[in-house]
Amino acid sequence: MTFSPTLFDSVETPALLIDRAQMMRNISMMAEFAVKAEVALRPHFKTSKMIEVARLQLQAGAIGFTCATMAEAEALLAAGINDVFWANAPASAQKARFAAEANHTARLAVGIDSVELAAVLSQAAVAADSTIPVILEIDTGLARTGVLAAAADDVAAEIAALPGILLDGVYMHEGQLASLKGTRDEIVAAGTGAASSLVAVAEQLRASGHTISVVSVGSTPGWESAPRVAGVTEARAGTYVFFDANQFRLGSALSAQCAITVLSTVVSVPAADRRVIDAGIKAMSSDRSNRGDTLGLVTAPEGALADDIVFERAYEEHGILNGTGIDELGFGSRVRIIPNHACGVVNMFSRVHVVEGSDVVDIWNPVGRH
Amino acid sequence: MTFSPTLFDSVETPALLIDRAQMMRNISMMAEFAVKAEVALRPHFKTSKMIEVARLQLQAGAIGFTCATMAEAEALLAAGINDVFWANAPASAQKARFAAEANHTARLAVGIDSVELAAVLSQAAVAADSTIPVILEIDTGLARTGVLAAAADDVAAEIAALPGILLDGVYMHEGQLASLKGTRDEIVAAGTGAASSLVAVAEQLRASGHTISVVSVGSTPGWESAPRVAGVTEARAGTYVFFDANQFRLGSALSAQCAITVLSTVVSVPAADRRVIDAGIKAMSSDRSNRGDTLGLVTAPEGALADDIVFERAYEEHGILNGTGIDELGFGSRVRIIPNHACGVVNMFSRVHVVEGSDVVDIWNPVGRH
Repeated sequence: MTFSPTLFDSVETPALLIDRAQMMRNISMMAEFAVKAEVALRPHFKTSKMIEVARLQLQAGAIGFTCATMAEAEALLAAGINDVFWANAPASAQKARFAAEANHTARLAVGIDSVELAAVLSQAAVAADSTIPVILEIDTGLARTGVLAAAADDVAAEIAALPGILLDGVYMHEGQLASLKGTRDEIVAAGTGAASSLVAVAEQLRASGHTISVVSVGSTPGWESAPRVAGVTEARAGTYVFFDANQFRLGSALSAQCAITVLSTVVSVPAADRRVIDAGIKAMSSDRSNRGDTLGLVTAPEGALADDIVFERAYEEHGILNGTGIDELGFGSRVRIIPNHACGVVNMFSRVHVVEGSDVVDIWNPVGRH
Repeated sequence: MTFSPTLFDSVETPALLIDRAQMMRNISMMAEFAVKAEVALRPHFKTSKMIEVARLQLQAGAIGFTCATMAEAEALLAAGINDVFWANAPASAQKARFAAEANHTARLAVGIDSVELAAVLSQAAVAADSTIPVILEIDTGLARTGVLAAAADDVAAEIAALPGILLDGVYMHEGQLASLKGTRDEIVAAGTGAASSLVAVAEQLRASGHTISVVSVGSTPGWESAPRVAGVTEARAGTYVFFDANQFRLGSALSAQCAITVLSTVVSVPAADRRVIDAGIKAMSSDRSNRGDTLGLVTAPEGALADDIVFERAYEEHGILNGTGIDELGFGSRVRIIPNHACGVVNMFSRVHVVEGSDVVDIWNPVGRH
């Protein structure tokens, strides 16, 4: 295995590389899966934070996007992408006003999990003479936000009584799958079980007289299980567009499907037992591995995993590699690292190098960071 | 304790707040300490990444800055700050060329720890008809970069023989202090010991005929120990400008000295045992605590620690608080959080709210992120 200093030698490191061809395969694969599963595809924008990527997903068949923050919603709407689900509580008067006004010219549905939040949205919608579609979040096991199934009927009744908002569906984020240590079969079963719970809530709410047109599931660990459950109408996976080391470890993807890598250079060979690279926490993010405690997976230039090299620890601008494979790495050698968490690492970079093979073909800029 | 929704109600959350008055006290305190310790103060710019902060540090007596990346060096030089130490190996031809050319109009010293890197710099300096001052890094216990004391004489001899570069000093980063679990006295002793080792190397190199004008130490855990050792000429602490929860836990500062907080809003009250805030990993960074495993310290609006509230876990845009104190927190309540790591959290934000008491007095923009 060679880690040549001339690998992408026009690119200063650390740099975030997106393999365009592999990303396109991921985009197509998920679009085709959604067709087969008979669900609408509404990918999460938080992973790429790049309008260029969003447009490619739309071209492949996505109906719109999911986003997490007001800045992401603003960026999508500004790009003319008019069907957005803001799957995070806009819990301030200003955010509610933004949601109300956006619905004059677009559909910006928002996720909610409380009557208090619904009241804030209702007030803003009435003031703006608008209607905000809301999607009720159900907690199907993550124990983060969301109402429990047993409380859904009561909360839905109170929400539906408020003016200016329209209860239009239910959703879950089955993020609990990402921390499962079991087999892929167990992860698939957990995704199926969570979606079944969500569908049951949707049916219960319909029986109570609510129009529940959206039953939305979303997570990349559950991408091939939750959307297949009968009654689910929409899939929101996000990380799939690039995949990452955590998804590889969860069995959501092969390592060859990971379209995102951090290019880094060996800047110091201070001892036989380590190599120091210029990718630290400010490049990789400090998101830990979901299994083990490394900072990412080192690959050979062409993408094969270098199983004998371990990314053991990181400081702000330094990463420490060890393992028997580091003998191949001299001063100036370049490595590529599949990050643990694609969404975290994109958020660290102001610009992203788009590559085809060993050529840089474009530079894209993530938007909407805090 | 009240966590009013009207706390900084003009500021959308999550937001990074800098308490200007406390920051000024930190800046003055360190400047006065450097005078007493008879060392030059060259703060690390990676903490603030803000030219506005750098200017205040210069006004208080800093002689120049330390930085970690080419982008940080460029930002400092562009602001007319012409005495910069780039304490990180510029291990590419382009970076070396930048360093060589910068030395036509400024002093940009660079840290090195190998003959290979010195050769890259030498080549660039000769090509640019320039001279690059270099400072040899000595590993005094961090086991990251740097040469061991025993190797310093041989490496220095090879470096000094190269044209276009001038070996002008030695430096260490005593980052090992940050992971010590011992008492403050033990941390102080470790800082003193590391600096003594560095001074011994400087004396050995002088005995070998090298001009070693700079003996530079740097870390905030060691801010009041390493610079006091006789023979040290320069202190480079960075985090002190804001301090943070990790420095508080290390005894480097009181919690009241922390000038940096993340303002966040309770967006969900899904169960009695938790509150969900809108500060997740993309706001806090995922830098862990050096003692325990929380994401930061929750404070009351006026700054006192809320010891009965624990920031237990975080997702990208969600933080989970628990502990007995969460009963005080309703939907819409605002909290302030002292981050674990000031340098990591500043790097997450495109803009920073500068506050005096409960007023926002300025907006500053960090520069030079990847």
